Amino acid sequence: MAYIRTFGEIPGNPERTLYAGREELRLAGLHAHQRNGISGTKAYGADAIVLNGGYSDDRDEGDLIIYTGEGGQDANNRQIADQTITRGNAGLVRSQMERLPVRVIRGYEEKSEHAPTEGYRYDGLYRVVRHWFKTRPDGFRVLQFRLEKITETEILFDLPQDIDVGDSGSQSTSNAPVSRTERVTQRLNRKASVVRNIKKWHKNACQVCDTRIELPGGPASEVAHIQGLGEPHNGPDREENALCLCPNDHLRFDYGAIYLTDDLEVIDARTGQAIGALRTHPKHSIDLRYVRQHRGYWTK
Amino acid sequence: MAYIRTFGEIPGNPERTLYAGREELRLAGLHAHQRNGISGTKAYGADAIVLNGGYSDDRDEGDLIIYTGEGGQDANNRQIADQTITRGNAGLVRSQMERLPVRVIRGYEEKSEHAPTEGYRYDGLYRVVRHWFKTRPDGFRVLQFRLEKITETEILFDLPQDIDVGDSGSQSTSNAPVSRTERVTQRLNRKASVVRNIKKWHKNACQVCDTRIELPGGPASEVAHIQGLGEPHNGPDREENALCLCPNDHLRFDYGAIYLTDDLEVIDARTGQAIGALRTHPKHSIDLRYVRQHRGYWTK
Repeated sequence: MAYIRTFGEIPGNPERTLYAGREELRLAGLHAHQRNGISGTKAYGADAIVLNGGYSDDRDEGDLIIYTGEGGQDANNRQIADQTITRGNAGLVRSQMERLPVRVIRGYEEKSEHAPTEGYRYDGLYRVVRHWFKTRPDGFRVLQFRLEKITETEILFDLPQDIDVGDSGSQSTSNAPVSRTERVTQRLNRKASVVRNIKKWHKNACQVCDTRIELPGGPASEVAHIQGLGEPHNGPDREENALCLCPNDHLRFDYGAIYLTDDLEVIDARTGQAIGALRTHPKHSIDLRYVRQHRGYWTK
Repeated sequence: MAYIRTFGEIPGNPERTLYAGREELRLAGLHAHQRNGISGTKAYGADAIVLNGGYSDDRDEGDLIIYTGEGGQDANNRQIADQTITRGNAGLVRSQMERLPVRVIRGYEEKSEHAPTEGYRYDGLYRVVRHWFKTRPDGFRVLQFRLEKITETEILFDLPQDIDVGDSGSQSTSNAPVSRTERVTQRLNRKASVVRNIKKWHKNACQVCDTRIELPGGPASEVAHIQGLGEPHNGPDREENALCLCPNDHLRFDYGAIYLTDDLEVIDARTGQAIGALRTHPKHSIDLRYVRQHRGYWTK
């Protein structure tokens, strides 16, 4: 059975569910692999990790985890090379950039008071907040990630901003009301696909200034919503309401230093003058309703 | 008695404490003013707001608040002019930029199930996550702010990153252990002063690229920590460990696309070549210990 990469909770698999082994985790849709710690790719991000005592450099303080990346080990789990920002490691970096939730699964081999005594346990959603290289005593360099648990409040806060989640691109086939878990998961996955499309079309280059930020883990950009998500604006989370921006222009756009005309010219709010044209892409149609709504926040 | 602007909880005044009137709030150090809704200034940010039914445009959903700014009203609270990003409004924008916590106080005149029936109640810490202008039916424009409650988990997460908070610039005069509230409050206020100093010295211009982002609420920049705060690096939250960066270079610095030499040259990690010198300021001494620690995350 193919693994479908899903971000967020998996319906029917609430936090604290126990699984006998890695195959059971994979079949439930929680983690893609039988052996790797990280379920993720550079292009899509990482949706899950397993903590199972693979690295002495790991630290597990429950809601705060220092997790060591993958690679550079021989068949006996001996470090023989430096790790790099590739494969699963690049997936976790991508999840950090895009604030994607990562499922944390603890295994029985982990030496921590937070680990289960047997099998594997799904322990909720975490966010990657930082990564860095660490030089081990043996001289090899490993990647490390700081993960923090996402609180229930934080998850619920985001829910109202996507009230039409049940009827667009939905995975549910019946008319029955979808559960909280399904709504959260659908929202997260739709968000991930919107972000991926926008970044792909624009090759991570800012539509205002053409800056493309090159990081060791790959190019970076931000996906800005034109009409704000969530209360009270309730803009939709889809491509027609999104822009690919560098962080600087994202800040300018969100704080009203720049806005767009109906011809997609970029206006400097201080002078009211156009400073250039928004770069567009044939696949990326922008709905002027959202452009007008954003402009209305900042001009009469 | 002068009001001392303090960010975070006020010791001895836990959440849900009731106060008879505005003067009691001011004397307790919770809110600067007798009448204004916003306790804040453009330079320092806003530390508190009162919700007391002053604006029909407000919305109070408990953990989520849509709050209307101040100004443009006559003595009878009739709107006679547009609001602007000045005074208290500029304070709330500043708090949004710098992620400062805002105390929310609800008054008995507020028409909401969340309001107290008499007096004023301190209802915890919130974060400003967005602001925009709204055109009212009468044609005047008011500023609005979306505030979200900060969870206890989020507050506690940040605590370990400042373990020396009790002995540097501390407000406690005894050797007695400081309470959780005191530690949180001291940390938040020290953080606010570090951010303020760094931004002031560099006039919000990026030390790498000289970009200064001009927003309607004033210039914007970010304060980056050279050696990361929090576990596992535990860099200190002080000026010697901080840089004034634009968001783009902040991202590059945190993800290892750029790092510094001991001569404070900026190195592009892809080429290993210097791309320029970090701009410095005589009052801003940078401790090379932190520079080396950061460099060590990204190079051998």
